[in-house]
Amino acid sequence: MTAPPLANLINELSRLPGIGAKSASRLAYHLLKRPAAEAEALAHAILEVKEKIRRCGVCNNMTDVEPCSICSDARRDPALLCVVEEAFNIPTVEATRDFRGLYHVLLGSLSPLKGIGPDDIDVGGVVRRVKEGTIREVILATNPNVEGEATALWVAQQLRPFDVRVTRLAFGLPVGGDLEYADQVTMSKALEGRREI
Amino acid sequence: MTAPPLANLINELSRLPGIGAKSASRLAYHLLKRPAAEAEALAHAILEVKEKIRRCGVCNNMTDVEPCSICSDARRDPALLCVVEEAFNIPTVEATRDFRGLYHVLLGSLSPLKGIGPDDIDVGGVVRRVKEGTIREVILATNPNVEGEATALWVAQQLRPFDVRVTRLAFGLPVGGDLEYADQVTMSKALEGRREI
Repeated sequence: MTAPPLANLINELSRLPGIGAKSASRLAYHLLKRPAAEAEALAHAILEVKEKIRRCGVCNNMTDVEPCSICSDARRDPALLCVVEEAFNIPTVEATRDFRGLYHVLLGSLSPLKGIGPDDIDVGGVVRRVKEGTIREVILATNPNVEGEATALWVAQQLRPFDVRVTRLAFGLPVGGDLEYADQVTMSKALEGRREI
Repeated sequence: MTAPPLANLINELSRLPGIGAKSASRLAYHLLKRPAAEAEALAHAILEVKEKIRRCGVCNNMTDVEPCSICSDARRDPALLCVVEEAFNIPTVEATRDFRGLYHVLLGSLSPLKGIGPDDIDVGGVVRRVKEGTIREVILATNPNVEGEATALWVAQQLRPFDVRVTRLAFGLPVGGDLEYADQVTMSKALEGRREI
């Protein structure tokens, strides 16, 4: 009984990750209630992003200029390379304001279960950039899970022939958390990585 | 450091209800990864809905035809009218498959705090339709909260001069719930509305 254009919008919205049928319906009715200009701004933003955003040819980041604004920023330290799985991991590292080097996006992580092997991720790009000789340290900032760990180990292995420091993000207690809620593996890592104070 | 078209999409998405900055970012990167056709389908669905969907002139439901597919359905019982606050409440009632009458959307509920008074909702439409004489029962299906209750009482009052049965949805324990989690008011209503078995 729902009008076809409305049913269609609800259907399209429910394809988005984390948006179920109820949320999709709520969003669709919300857009119906808002001024046309607001809904059009969203539609155009979607179209524009698909039209203008590409992968950076240097680091695989999402960008509208080539190379991306991070790669072309002369104030950043070209001796430091942070390797992440996905482009959306970059804002998370940037938010700390503690990292002023460059990035490389692997475009995924090793996952035998999903059939993603070493040739499916851009480790070659990391090696190529390290070979150029400017990079002194590669920080492996892959996810703190099984796939991320396997990927970090694999990248580290590929970089062994080169004169470059390879580091991994620290594991330990998340700041602001409660000791009693720390899982066993995290707690082990926190003990293992303990530091003098 | 985020490319402007991408930052713009994240911003537009975060204006949607229930979508925070993190979710907006996740949705935007998801759309970037999906084929262009999929993102375009969503953008066009948004534009089409704003272009084609209007309020039904009879019941205020969202529709692409006039009157809406419910109002024009000859198989439905024109003697039964279900009054709801918003168009998106109709699918919830329809999902029960227990109601085969018609609807009227009030376009809101009485809320002195938000400055919404009797003239801001379409009680007049309900009265007009009752006056036509076909309707035998008006079911008040406004929300089970303070505003919904006030609205139901107000509509009931406006219908008092007419020879029509006015009913309100039952209050009580939600099916599948646990007695121990029922709040005091719901429990009172459940006791008050108890029935012989």
